Parts: sequence; C-alpha cells; structure tokens
Amino acid sequence: MPNDQFDSSDSLRSASPLNHLQTVTFREPLRLELGRELSEVTVAFETYGRLNAAGDNAVLICHALSGDSHVAKHDEADDPGWWDIMVGPGKAIDTDRYFVICPNFLGGCRGSTGPNSIDPATGQPYATDFPVVTLGDIVETQRRLIDHLGIHRLRAVVGGSLGGHAALTWATRLPERLVGTVAIATSPRLTSQALAFDVVGRNAILRDPTYHKGRYYDLEHGPTVGLAIARMLGHITYLSREAMMQKFDAQRLRPRDVHTQFETKFAVGSYLAYQGDRFGERFDANSYLTLTMAIDLFDLGATRESLREALDRSTCRWLLMSFSSDWLFPPFQSQELVDALIAADKPVSYCCVQTDCGHDAFLLPNQLPIYGEMIRAFLENLGDGTDGAGAGRTSAVDCTMAPLPQPPSSSIFHHHRLDYENILNLIPPGASVLDLGCGTGGLLARLRARGHKHLVGVEWDEQAILTCVRRGLNVVQADLNKGLPAFTDGQFDFVVLSQTLQIVLDVSKLLHDMLRVGRRGIVSFPNIAFRKRRDELAKLGRSPQVQADQGFQWHNTPYLRWLSIADFEDFCRQQGVTIHQQIDLDTEADVVIHDNPNLNADVAVMVLSR
Amino acid sequence: MPNDQFDSSDSLRSASPLNHLQTVTFREPLRLELGRELSEVTVAFETYGRLNAAGDNAVLICHALSGDSHVAKHDEADDPGWWDIMVGPGKAIDTDRYFVICPNFLGGCRGSTGPNSIDPATGQPYATDFPVVTLGDIVETQRRLIDHLGIHRLRAVVGGSLGGHAALTWATRLPERLVGTVAIATSPRLTSQALAFDVVGRNAILRDPTYHKGRYYDLEHGPTVGLAIARMLGHITYLSREAMMQKFDAQRLRPRDVHTQFETKFAVGSYLAYQGDRFGERFDANSYLTLTMAIDLFDLGATRESLREALDRSTCRWLLMSFSSDWLFPPFQSQELVDALIAADKPVSYCCVQTDCGHDAFLLPNQLPIYGEMIRAFLENLGDGTDGAGAGRTSAVDCTMAPLPQPPSSSIFHHHRLDYENILNLIPPGASVLDLGCGTGGLLARLRARGHKHLVGVEWDEQAILTCVRRGLNVVQADLNKGLPAFTDGQFDFVVLSQTLQIVLDVSKLLHDMLRVGRRGIVSFPNIAFRKRRDELAKLGRSPQVQADQGFQWHNTPYLRWLSIADFEDFCRQQGVTIHQQIDLDTEADVVIHDNPNLNADVAVMVLSR
Repeated sequence: MPNDQFDSSDSLRSASPLNHLQTVTFREPLRLELGRELSEVTVAFETYGRLNAAGDNAVLICHALSGDSHVAKHDEADDPGWWDIMVGPGKAIDTDRYFVICPNFLGGCRGSTGPNSIDPATGQPYATDFPVVTLGDIVETQRRLIDHLGIHRLRAVVGGSLGGHAALTWATRLPERLVGTVAIATSPRLTSQALAFDVVGRNAILRDPTYHKGRYYDLEHGPTVGLAIARMLGHITYLSREAMMQKFDAQRLRPRDVHTQFETKFAVGSYLAYQGDRFGERFDANSYLTLTMAIDLFDLGATRESLREALDRSTCRWLLMSFSSDWLFPPFQSQELVDALIAADKPVSYCCVQTDCGHDAFLLPNQLPIYGEMIRAFLENLGDGTDGAGAGRTSAVDCTMAPLPQPPSSSIFHHHRLDYENILNLIPPGASVLDLGCGTGGLLARLRARGHKHLVGVEWDEQAILTCVRRGLNVVQADLNKGLPAFTDGQFDFVVLSQTLQIVLDVSKLLHDMLRVGRRGIVSFPNIAFRKRRDELAKLGRSPQVQADQGFQWHNTPYLRWLSIADFEDFCRQQGVTIHQQIDLDTEADVVIHDNPNLNADVAVMVLSR
Repeated sequence: MPNDQFDSSDSLRSASPLNHLQTVTFREPLRLELGRELSEVTVAFETYGRLNAAGDNAVLICHALSGDSHVAKHDEADDPGWWDIMVGPGKAIDTDRYFVICPNFLGGCRGSTGPNSIDPATGQPYATDFPVVTLGDIVETQRRLIDHLGIHRLRAVVGGSLGGHAALTWATRLPERLVGTVAIATSPRLTSQALAFDVVGRNAILRDPTYHKGRYYDLEHGPTVGLAIARMLGHITYLSREAMMQKFDAQRLRPRDVHTQFETKFAVGSYLAYQGDRFGERFDANSYLTLTMAIDLFDLGATRESLREALDRSTCRWLLMSFSSDWLFPPFQSQELVDALIAADKPVSYCCVQTDCGHDAFLLPNQLPIYGEMIRAFLENLGDGTDGAGAGRTSAVDCTMAPLPQPPSSSIFHHHRLDYENILNLIPPGASVLDLGCGTGGLLARLRARGHKHLVGVEWDEQAILTCVRRGLNVVQADLNKGLPAFTDGQFDFVVLSQTLQIVLDVSKLLHDMLRVGRRGIVSFPNIAFRKRRDELAKLGRSPQVQADQGFQWHNTPYLRWLSIADFEDFCRQQGVTIHQQIDLDTEADVVIHDNPNLNADVAVMVLSR
C-alpha cells in the first residue's frame, strides 16, 4: 500500500507544467462514430525521450479515466506524473530507449478538446452540446497526433483500465500502426456491475442542482457535490476489500481531520470525502460524464465469437495483465480477451498478477518485480519488429512422418527435463507446438532454435511466465485442471504435456482437450511400475516415492496422480486414444528401454491422437 | 434469479395492512447507549401463529435495513411479506408450529419510534433531533416487546444482514432470553468496504439540497434524489457480479421503459433508477441515516480475542449461514464469528451456501433446499430446550485408559465406515470429540447415543452438513487443508480423522493441528502396502487402486495421498508423534491383524499424541 493514505489514486492527479505540455489543433472536421462532427480538434500531449532515426521506438501511453498527459516527471524538479513507477529513464518503459507519447483524451479536461473547450460555432463552452464520443473517436484523434509527429508505426500502445480499452481499440482499428499492445487491468467491455457504478456516479452529477443542465462554467459553483459523490464511489471500486481493510481498519473510528463538505465520521469516510473534494477542484463534471459514457459504450464483443472476430483484425504481439484482487476489471475479463486472441491464433502472453491492491495495482509499485518487468521484457522483445502473425496455427507438416527418435548418447540432462531431447526428436521441423506446463520455456526455446515459428506455452507460475516473456516466447497463464477451453479444434500440430500429467487432477478432461486442440499429443510421465518403485512397495512396504530425491514424501509430494505405463495404455484404450509412438526411458541409466518397459522404464514418452 | 427483474429486493417492500399491524408504546424512558434518552418508545410489530401454553414456541425475526414488520402474508389475500419464502404455514419457520414475532426497528419509519415520529417534547417530528441509536438500543426495545407479550424465553432469534447484527446482539446481551440464534449473511462488524458504501450513500442524502438539514417533513419534497442514489448504490451491493450479469447482460443496451428522474440509458440503469425512485416513495431518509449509522457502529469485536469474549456471554445454540457470492457480508466474516464461537466452546453449526445470488440470496428462493431446510432442522432441534452449554470442552476422562478394542464379530459394516466400531471402542465414555470430515454425522450420532455430550463435526459438503443439523449435531463447514485455526489448544479429548487423511493435501499441518487441539488424535487410513495393493503394482504393474471397487482409477480417484502403515509410522517418528494404540484391520476378512500389519492389514486405526 502507498505510504500516505491520501496519495494512492491521487498519483493520477498532477499539474502538468505548461513548459512540457504541447498541443496541436487539427482543423479537419472529425466525423464521430455516433453521427455528429467536431469542426476541429485539439490534442494536448507530452513526450519523453527521443524518436530514433528509424522512427521505430515510439510508445504511446493511454491514460485512465481521471488521468492526463503528464504520465511522468520530465525531470527531478517536475511535478509527479501518474505513472512515475513505470515511465522514466531506466524504468520499465525506459525513456532512454523509447520515445514516449502521452496525449490527453478527447472529451477530457486537461488540454484536449472536451466539454469545457470553446465551441467555435458559438464561442461558448460546449458543455452538454459536446457530443457522445467513443473509444474509436478518441483513438482517431490519437492517430492524427501520431501522424503529426511523423510516426508511421508505434513500437507499442500501452494502457490500463480505460487506457486498456484505448489500446484494444488501437490494435483492432489501426492494426498496421503498431507492433505491440500492452493492455493492463482491462476488459472487452464493462461488467454490468462496473457499468452500474458508472450509472450511479453519473446520476449523482446529473441530479446535482448546481449542475444547471451542464451550463455551470460561468457560475460560481459547478456540481462539485455530485462529482465528489461519483469520485468517492469510484475510489471504493479501485481498491480491493483487503486493501481497504489494511488501510482503514486499524483506525476505523479515528478519521483524519480534513475539511470537507462531507461526513467524515469514519477513517474511510474522511479519506473518501477528501478524495471527492479534491477531485471536484481539478476535474470537469462534463468530462466525467463524457468519458464514463465512452467506457460504458465500449464493447469489443459480447460473445466469444464476436470477440474473436474483433481481435482477429489485430496483427500486433500482445501482452495482457490483470490483478487477482481487481473486482472492477476482474481477471476473468482479461482471460476472455486472452481466450479470444488464442482462438484467433494471435501471439499473446498473459499473467494475472497476485496482489491485494485491487484495480489500483496498475498504478502502485507493489507488484513491479513481476508486473513492471513483464512490460519491460515484452517491449524489449518487440525490437525485432516481427509482424507477430500466427502464434498457433497448424503448419503443413506431416505429423505421421516424425523422424525416429534418436536418444542422445552422452548428454547431461537437467533432471526434470531429461525427456526434452526425446520430445524434440518426435516433433517434425516446422510443426506448431503448444507446450502445457511449459515452465520457463526450455522446450519452446529449443524448438524456436530449431526454426519452429508457431509456439505457445501455458504455465501457472508468475516468475516462470516472466522468464518466458523475457525469452520472447508467447506464454499464457492458465489452470490445466480446467482443460483448454480457449483453444480451437486442431489449432496445433503438437500439444505437449511433459512431466505435468502427474499434477493434473482432471486427467481425462485435459487429455481430451489436448487431442482436440492438437493433431498429435505428446505426453511424458513417470512410471510408478518402474522396478525400483515396485520394490519400494513390494519389498520395503513403502509408498513409491518417485520424487524422494527431491525431498518429497507421500505427504507433501506435488504429484497427485500415480500411474504405470500399462495403466496409461489401458486408459488410452478406454478413451479411444491411439498411441502412435512410444519411447520408454531409464533416465538414470540414460538408455532407451525396449524390453518390458512397464518394469524397466522410469519415464515414458508417447505420441497420441484420437 | 427472481422472475421479474423489478421485483428482486423489492420483496423487502410491503404495505403492511393496518389490521395486522400492532403497536405498543412504552412510557418508561429509554436510556440510550450513547447517552441520550427517549422519553417513550413505540414498537410496531406483527405476529403469526399462536403462542403455546408453555410459552416456549416464540421466534423473533429481525428485519434488514429496509424491511419492516410485515415479514409474511397473514393470509392469501394479504400483501406479500418480505420473507414469504421462509415464514408461513408449513414453511421453514412454520407458523403452524411457532409464534412468530416481527417488530419494526427503533429508528425505522414503519410504525416504530423513529426520526419521523412526533417528539413528545416539541410536538414536531424528531427529524435530526432523533438520537444516534445502536443495535443495543434496538434490541432493548425488542426486549420490552417480548416482556409485554409475556414471553420469558424465545425459541430463537432469527435475522439476516442487519437483522443478523440484531440476532448477535440478542445472543450476547440477553443470553438467558433465547434458546437458539440463527444469524444469516452477517458479520461481527462491517468491512471497511461496506462501511464506505454507507458513507457515500449518507453523503448523497445529507448533501441533497432538499434534505433541508433533515427538516423536510412539512415540505413538498424530501431528499428523494439523495435517498435514491443511496438505494441504487445499495442495490449494487446486494447483488453479485454474476447475478447482475445474468440479469442485465443480455439486454444491456435495452433499458425497460420506466419513468424516473434518473439516467436510464442501460438496462441496469433503468433497473436502478426504478428501484431508487420507488424507495424514495416508501422510506424516510432520516431513518436511512439512523439505521445505516447503527449498522456502521455495530462492532462485536475487532480482534479474534475480543470477538471470543463477546460471544462467550452467549448460552444459546447457534446456526450461522453465509452465501458464497455475498460480497457485502462476505463468508469470511461469518467464519470469523464461527471461529470465535468454536474457540469459546459454543454449540454452533455453520454452512456457506454456494450460490450466485449475492447478499440477496437470503431473500430469494433459490437456495431454500439447503438454506431453508437448515433453518427448519435447527429450529426443530431446539425443541428440547437444552441450554447448549459447551460443545467442545475437554472432559475429565482419562484418555490413556481407553478400553481395549473389541472388534465386533458379526456386524455388517457400511463399506466406508468399517472402522467406526473400532474407533468407538477407543474413545472412553464421556470424552469430548471433534470429528474431522464427519460426513453425515454417523460417528458423532453413535457417540451421542453412547452418552457423549461434547461433540463437534467438521465437514465440507453442504448436504452432509444439512443431514448433521437434522440430526441435531453441531457441525461447521471448513477446509481441512487450512488446518484447524478456529480451535484452541487442548479443546477436545479426542480429534478423529477417519478415512479422510488420504484426501488432505497438507497432511503435516493438519496432523499438527489435530494434536494441538486434541489430547489424543485418532487417525484411520487405507494401507497402500496391503498385500493386494502390493500385488497390483509388483505383479500386475498397475497403480494400486484402493478404491477400484467404487469405480475410481488412478486418474479420477479423490484420494490424493497414498501411504503405508510403515510410512505413517516413519512420519510419526519424524514429527515427534507418539502412537499409543494401533488397530490393524483386514476389513474384507473382518479380522484384526496382529502379524505384519503393513502387509496384511488394509486399514489402520491409530491413537496419537504429541
């Protein structure tokens, strides 16, 4: 949690020093998606770092609801930016490497054309004459800015929350204009719950008598009460229940002594009152209405298929991140986006970062070791400018023509991965591969080194996913016990489950999905009927401890499923699964077993199909 | 979900027909907890059924924030009550059996003294002169009503949400006045998140210009906008995200055509606007302020120890229920109450009911087969009027003097429970017993039949818990993988883990906790080194299938831990655990094994201590 309870989401707020705020006005009328037109549009923005000679190091950052162009300090003397944790020299979005651009949104109130701007037709503020704008309109003004800056193709568009909606819009509307998209704590569209909070906030503003039908700019007071109510409500949704507990429970009945027009009986009450009052000082109520309406109308697709179609237009590489305790943009919504990208064969990495910080986590330093480093690594790997087409996608390889296995004669195996070489030898050149439980990407990296292009990993561990992203691999977080719902039928030539079967509870479902998604499945697992295991039970009367050498015993082993090669052969027969190839290994002796493998092999590798 | 999207929480609302509404006015001044006094207090209430001759069948029902005395229809022609699903002839709270009393709360606006009542001192409505009241004050007026009705001891006090706070207050302030307490979807105190929503709602009312400092009763309009904003907000918190999705996502952009003063652009918007407007017609804003403040100030204990102390005053039997998707009164808060009751040796049953319906679940029919039946069964078992003292609590038995086991010679065992008789024989008369994974309570019921008094079960399955409650047993829902954090050191003579060890992931933690909580632990488990199991692996090369007779194989067995008797003996040595007694069984042959049990026994029963 932030040190000062009054500073958390107020990192969103900043007074952009005029000397860094730039504006550009486009006189060409902007035709809006919902029918109306703005005769001219001004975009306020700030930039950081330098555009390189090739013009390919520009990163566009899209702010959230109450953000602005001042994403970071320009120098030590500058006011704090709303994302100083992420943007600056040497930081994850490294302004020594990248030319960072952050525009204020169309409809905002911090320099870009919005309801508080003068309508050229009347000479008065637009106020409620300001049209309903969409994320498409907002992104169109950002495109004009990018054109104006002479940038053909952005290295990446990065945004969280509403900014994530903008990033999604960029990737799907202007796919040729960006190499990578980083969409953080966002969604295909709001949940009805999140939408409901917006509706209540808007009603508080619209029904505030000082709102004066939006024409309050000449009056002494605008609808500061309604806006403050909306902001208080917003603040509750930005924090997790756990975060609020940590922040307020200790001094529940001892509010901070703040001067505000609101009830401050409880600690949380004085916090919210203070946030609400301060917001009224710096934000325009009509902008709040305009931007929340843009969020509420954003809808990339309500069904899995419509979402897939929308995302199918993208050609960038994707990084998505969510936060476990975010209930405003809950992780399942990022997962919906990831699932649709996977179904559309797009190159995507995804991680749900474990945190108590709620939606605000994307603005806080707490999870930077995973969250920030993931963004850094992703941006660095975009340097090659690959077009990112097709992460999955079956190739034209003949899966039945895999070369015969040739176990390496003198290699030194990592204990866990001693079946890698054998698996590699089972996969023909050029085949697309999905690796389930890919760990830090050892197998995928080896495949890539052999020239395979269409590679995707699934992993659960955050740190392992980070390592994969650092290696430039496409890896998504998923729980294998839920099967592979995101993947489409026949999407890969090979689906690999290497030394992972034994930790899966619903083996039957996962195997079914593997052979639905892959033309071939490759499974490797430890054999409980290996001679040594049999002896442990039969002669010593001890539970067969396949991982005893790693300190695991019957009561703490992560292995939950215990099977013999014969058991698995039976299982395949029951399930109508064909075993095409089988390599049985004694990994301690480093030999391939041909004689009675169920007794003599400690690991089996099998190629399967349905 | 309710059939009509506009009727859900409006089941709370009802126009109490005057002919059933009774009132009583107490002229004795009511000294309030926070220092002020009311010179007289009127309580409005309704009753259902008849008080029996013994006067021991009265059930007091406490309503939630916006409820009133009209808990149910009095007859078919009557207006709907807010809890018709639960209260009525033949229903869970059966008005053919019980004399049901439902009073309107002090501070409310439906007949009992509240801010809209006339202050005898001024002849004007109290308005903001109405004092801050607490749950203690509310319950004190209810006590006066019960006295007035000539009831010495209530069969039970039942309440959900705020009504649950009232029930908790009854049980801890007036313990001698009730036999049982049913506290539903409630908490020791609000989360800071829930409190924050109340603060925002109150601010919306207090800052509504038509609030007129609370003196709006003579004016044309009260603060209907502020009250409506508060109510809209409340409605969001009563529903789960899933429920809102089901209710609104299909027709997200197609609002119902309602006439309201609020934005109705989205389906959820028109729902909330309608609910908000209707609430303003029937509820008094000052009552809303008064009752939410009573909720916000309710605090049974912020720490585990203070909560235990508060609940230690109770002498009733307890039933607590929560709902899995309730995020306003989240299940972990009911769990805190249950943990404190357990630590205080109080007789308690608890179940978190799985549902998508959120906090509103307690008003909806969806979960009645579990939720309603649990209440019915609990109330029925209160009939004996036992004082409910001490559910756990170690007795004076000498655990080392257990009689020698005498395996029954010709009994027909239920397959799973073939170790029951042996376990029963290991437990000396009068011992207190905690049964982990107690299922439907078979062992506990047998112990009770043998005269044991201090018995508690832990179980995960809802239906099994219901069966236990029907049997009058005290059973709480808990996940054994989390250990036994609720229980205190040495709380029971015996803690039993019968045929459950093999489904627990963290065996070490659970065993440690068992032997912390119990003076003795009794463990029974299947032996993987039984001759037949050894042969399966050694001779057949198949994974030992301890449950093959039940259709489970290696890939779908619920058993996750596989151990031999020798493994467990090793484990006990490592952990510094003493095995006091051991019975090894061949349950198929129905004999006790004395010779080489690790080979010849399929089940072992051991008595342990640290």
